[in-house]
Amino acid sequence: MNAEILSVGTELLLGHTVNTDTTIVARELSTIGVNVLYCATVGDNPARLEEAVRQALSRSDILVTTGGLGPTGDDLTKETVAAAAGKKLVLHEESLRRIEEYFKGRLWGESQKKQAWLPEGCTVLPNDVGTAPGCVFETETGKIVVMLPGPPSELTPMLTRYAIPCLASREQAVIVSENIHVFGMGEGAVAELIDDLMQGANPTAATYAKDNEMFVRVTARAESEEKARKMMAPLSAEIRERIGSYVYATDCESLEELAVQELLKAGKTLATAESCTGGLLSKRITDVSGASQVFEMGAVTYANRIKEQVLGVSHETLEAHGAVSPETAREMAQGIRRAAGSDLGVGITGIAGPGGGTPEKPVGLVYIALSDGEHTWVRKMMPGSAGRPRSRSWQRNAAASHALDMVRRYLQGIGGLEDAGLKR
Amino acid sequence: MNAEILSVGTELLLGHTVNTDTTIVARELSTIGVNVLYCATVGDNPARLEEAVRQALSRSDILVTTGGLGPTGDDLTKETVAAAAGKKLVLHEESLRRIEEYFKGRLWGESQKKQAWLPEGCTVLPNDVGTAPGCVFETETGKIVVMLPGPPSELTPMLTRYAIPCLASREQAVIVSENIHVFGMGEGAVAELIDDLMQGANPTAATYAKDNEMFVRVTARAESEEKARKMMAPLSAEIRERIGSYVYATDCESLEELAVQELLKAGKTLATAESCTGGLLSKRITDVSGASQVFEMGAVTYANRIKEQVLGVSHETLEAHGAVSPETAREMAQGIRRAAGSDLGVGITGIAGPGGGTPEKPVGLVYIALSDGEHTWVRKMMPGSAGRPRSRSWQRNAAASHALDMVRRYLQGIGGLEDAGLKR
Repeated sequence: MNAEILSVGTELLLGHTVNTDTTIVARELSTIGVNVLYCATVGDNPARLEEAVRQALSRSDILVTTGGLGPTGDDLTKETVAAAAGKKLVLHEESLRRIEEYFKGRLWGESQKKQAWLPEGCTVLPNDVGTAPGCVFETETGKIVVMLPGPPSELTPMLTRYAIPCLASREQAVIVSENIHVFGMGEGAVAELIDDLMQGANPTAATYAKDNEMFVRVTARAESEEKARKMMAPLSAEIRERIGSYVYATDCESLEELAVQELLKAGKTLATAESCTGGLLSKRITDVSGASQVFEMGAVTYANRIKEQVLGVSHETLEAHGAVSPETAREMAQGIRRAAGSDLGVGITGIAGPGGGTPEKPVGLVYIALSDGEHTWVRKMMPGSAGRPRSRSWQRNAAASHALDMVRRYLQGIGGLEDAGLKR
Repeated sequence: MNAEILSVGTELLLGHTVNTDTTIVARELSTIGVNVLYCATVGDNPARLEEAVRQALSRSDILVTTGGLGPTGDDLTKETVAAAAGKKLVLHEESLRRIEEYFKGRLWGESQKKQAWLPEGCTVLPNDVGTAPGCVFETETGKIVVMLPGPPSELTPMLTRYAIPCLASREQAVIVSENIHVFGMGEGAVAELIDDLMQGANPTAATYAKDNEMFVRVTARAESEEKARKMMAPLSAEIRERIGSYVYATDCESLEELAVQELLKAGKTLATAESCTGGLLSKRITDVSGASQVFEMGAVTYANRIKEQVLGVSHETLEAHGAVSPETAREMAQGIRRAAGSDLGVGITGIAGPGGGTPEKPVGLVYIALSDGEHTWVRKMMPGSAGRPRSRSWQRNAAASHALDMVRRYLQGIGGLEDAGLKR
């Protein structure tokens, strides 16, 4: 079946809210074999909304709306969609009780009750974290309409717990994909390597850029997940083979997820000393739930004084080579390892920009060191292609990713620790 | 004039890439008085793309496309849009030279040259960070078409440097908005406070939720920026008055931006000790370019051993009250201030979840302390409404925001340091 996602909200058209709802809904629909062919966004305007609903119902089997279910005057989705689909709204007693319970002991207005009015005959989707319920109903022409709230924190649980199981029971085919994650090689370089493998129709392979990484998605459509996986396996293996050790994982969320997994597996601990990345590396590591078992300590040492005091970087090194140098990175990694009593230590120092660059040490120059007590490896990260400076946040993210890549290469024992080797 | 944004790319329909292009384009268009009425997304499918182009050209004055300008086979936007608008593609010599220069000394293929073919008679928009140029042209029916590349890092400079100035020269009216940023009061509570002020047509006021903050946008449309600002001023002042000290700034990017500004103004320095936030606070502070002047040191101290060793938190405190306690937060703030030799110290300790909660110390319980050497204030953050746990990343962000709010309240001398006072 084909679906269309329609987001409602003037804030989306003004460009002050990123529409992540569409992404979340599209991803979940693809897991149950529903093809999304169109996404659209309209403002809180009944006429344009109604027109968009009519168009969607004329060309798609499923219409999923996001947003506009709340209590305020510009929350018009339910009324408008129900009218366009020829349905009346009726009061849903259980939803009213849920809303009353949500506001127990607090001041609340009549307008909140509006949220309990839903299209007659619909399946109600409970809102576990907010007040506005969603719903699923079928139109007279056999089209399915799903209405979800706008805030992603409410939409996501309603979608995955209630809407997707409800839709899945109607679907036959399954779309399965896996993502082959690559760090250190650009999308263009990978696309050239696997160009001939990207021509198939089922399974398919496609390349995607992602921050300072890229990934290859392999997708198959079949009547069962098992069959789909069997179709994908040889293609996926050939792709991994060609890209080699730049592939860091398949279907792993991120480099930090992998690094934490590998540390847990090896029973090793890590500590980090960051200058230009300012805590981003430790933040990314501790984004992974359970990181506390392997992450001993992070230090953000901007000032040279602190580098000496906390990490024991020698005054002579800082004087002779400067704070942004392989020597300082090396001593930072060794110093934090000693200070934290961890198995591994990482040191990052560089110039994230936009200010602070010089001809000898331009914005984008970063040194990343990893020490295990016996050896210390240093990777050098240079400014982007053709010397073009990238944004501060890009630089910082790339430097943290290099550190994580060094950690996983160390733990996987595959070498390449010092080779920045960004192939673009 | 009205505009429609059309994003092209199957990856958007599969839900693996968030469509930030739409947000960026919509925001920039609004600054020059162009109203965006529709956004749409289609895959790399010529027939559906052509249909979407025809519909857009029939109902909007301006069509902006994003994506599909690259060298690969599924980059079809230019051919399809040009055909739908009745234009031929011709080779643009200067763009070809730019592409050749970009690849100088590297291997590149014939397919890259495809990017230099552009609709005849168009204005070419240079790509300062990549290979695919964009363009602006007018159709025979007087509609304006703008084509931009998909990667946000390429789209943004092309849009702001070339496309917007080109469109602005055709526009008369200006839309000016300002955002009044609020921390510590929820969108619902603010909406109730200013309900009567949100009814106007020009200027308008509207509330927006943003992570764990909210903001009020005041917008006016007039023939000059000066006139628009004059229209907004009284409304904006009344809104700020009603919300009081929960307003932290107007048109300031973020709490961290404001905290760094206030530290610079006061000539004070800061150091942070983080447990559950894992470096997120120092990351957010150092996101602000120039933070190095006020940020002395950050320590991420997960293990109790490190809390004692690096911060001097007493063993007795940890034994008697536990790592997640007001006492530990207090000693962390005092300890990092001492260790770094800074004017202010922040300590954060809590349970970010999803694991690790107990009935006495549930997920979401976080203590945030600020010390200036003389006094130490501790704020307590409790789990969300009705005891519902929020996500790990929500918890961590909220805790870091509370710390920044305490810093700015301290420096602004307005009190309320210990009052978590989340009003929702």
